[in-house]
Amino acid sequence: MISLRASDHIPQLSIDCVIFGFSQNQLKVLSPKLIFKGDFWSLPGGFVRQDESIDQAARRILEERTGIKDIYLEQFRVFGETDRSNLSFWDRLTELNGEAFVAEHFNRKELEWITKRFVSIGYYALVDITKVIPVKMEADASVEWYDIQNLPPMIMDHNQIVAAALVSLQQNLDQKLIAFNLLPETFTMNEVQQIYEVVLNKTLLRSNFQKKILDLNVLERLEKKFTGKANKAPYLYRWAQ
Amino acid sequence: MISLRASDHIPQLSIDCVIFGFSQNQLKVLSPKLIFKGDFWSLPGGFVRQDESIDQAARRILEERTGIKDIYLEQFRVFGETDRSNLSFWDRLTELNGEAFVAEHFNRKELEWITKRFVSIGYYALVDITKVIPVKMEADASVEWYDIQNLPPMIMDHNQIVAAALVSLQQNLDQKLIAFNLLPETFTMNEVQQIYEVVLNKTLLRSNFQKKILDLNVLERLEKKFTGKANKAPYLYRWAQ
Repeated sequence: MISLRASDHIPQLSIDCVIFGFSQNQLKVLSPKLIFKGDFWSLPGGFVRQDESIDQAARRILEERTGIKDIYLEQFRVFGETDRSNLSFWDRLTELNGEAFVAEHFNRKELEWITKRFVSIGYYALVDITKVIPVKMEADASVEWYDIQNLPPMIMDHNQIVAAALVSLQQNLDQKLIAFNLLPETFTMNEVQQIYEVVLNKTLLRSNFQKKILDLNVLERLEKKFTGKANKAPYLYRWAQ
Repeated sequence: MISLRASDHIPQLSIDCVIFGFSQNQLKVLSPKLIFKGDFWSLPGGFVRQDESIDQAARRILEERTGIKDIYLEQFRVFGETDRSNLSFWDRLTELNGEAFVAEHFNRKELEWITKRFVSIGYYALVDITKVIPVKMEADASVEWYDIQNLPPMIMDHNQIVAAALVSLQQNLDQKLIAFNLLPETFTMNEVQQIYEVVLNKTLLRSNFQKKILDLNVLERLEKKFTGKANKAPYLYRWAQ
């Protein structure tokens, strides 16, 4: 039996989290796949307890999923169309898995609660992917990172939510100096540039980019990275503020 | 008796609208004052019907208040702290007006519905102030425009909502060319510059500003404005897209 603890939460309001990570020169998104038959991928999400703020709810959901506290988090938009198709998602799940299977996993009152229309608040998070150990919740068969260019088809409007989160990330990238949240504690200037190029989906001139970033005076230069070839080794940097 | 029609709406979810207008070189915000004793100013707001999207709800609320359709509208943030103090607002209202007065205006079941915690979606709208005839709803004593620098103290977190809307408007002003929504159909270049200066709260160089705006190729130049002095009369422009 999967417990939704419906009575503790604000009804018809959910939170969906787009968790961005960066590795192998790709922007990645974390997506759990449900245990039910039918290939249901989704965004990590949850509900808002009556006694917590919406930001606290988003942090709790992210911590449950990634094991990390103090994640960089932005609320970016609310998804409130009437045809977000929560009901048709549940109809399809029931069709593919059988009513008995669904009845075995959810109590009837909670099922009534969760099949209503939901308005969902979208948050995106930026994480150092090397620090995350994705956590499966009780309804998950798997939780994996997917290239943003190659996401599986997700339930409801979750693919649209990812697309909107990416637009918001692109708009915020310069304004708020948030890209560094996708990097480990120390990094090379090349790694910073790769993130900008992949997120903005364009090539940047190396010299201009490096000058712009260094002129911001937010990085501390450390020793050279050990590569075996002292001459060509790039410097390591660290966020200094 | 004030009807909230609670049963038609999503519970614990509201919409608050910051309606911006521009006149006498001031950015203005529309604020209704409630009929109850205690000087309760607020933002125009409402709830989301089960059968309408959140954007439709915001448009409906704005149309009810201003009489205008096709208003420029941006969803900018959700306000979801647990201490938004809906209950303490109702406590204070009851204290100042008496329980009998409140009981006379609200039915008990709806009062129970509306005194719960609400999560509120903030929208801001930009209007041509000359086209708006503010509409009083049944709980309003007045609906007036106030200078944003000189707003009355509002209920709950409504003053914070205005402050957040202004920050969002400032960020979007260049990116999205939205300032023209605050102007009547034809305007002088000086009027455009005034809006930018007031919203961004800084003085702009006239020649640079005019060049930047004209280079955008979004305006059509019309005849000169009639001022009685043909020589110094400024050109009128119109949004051309």
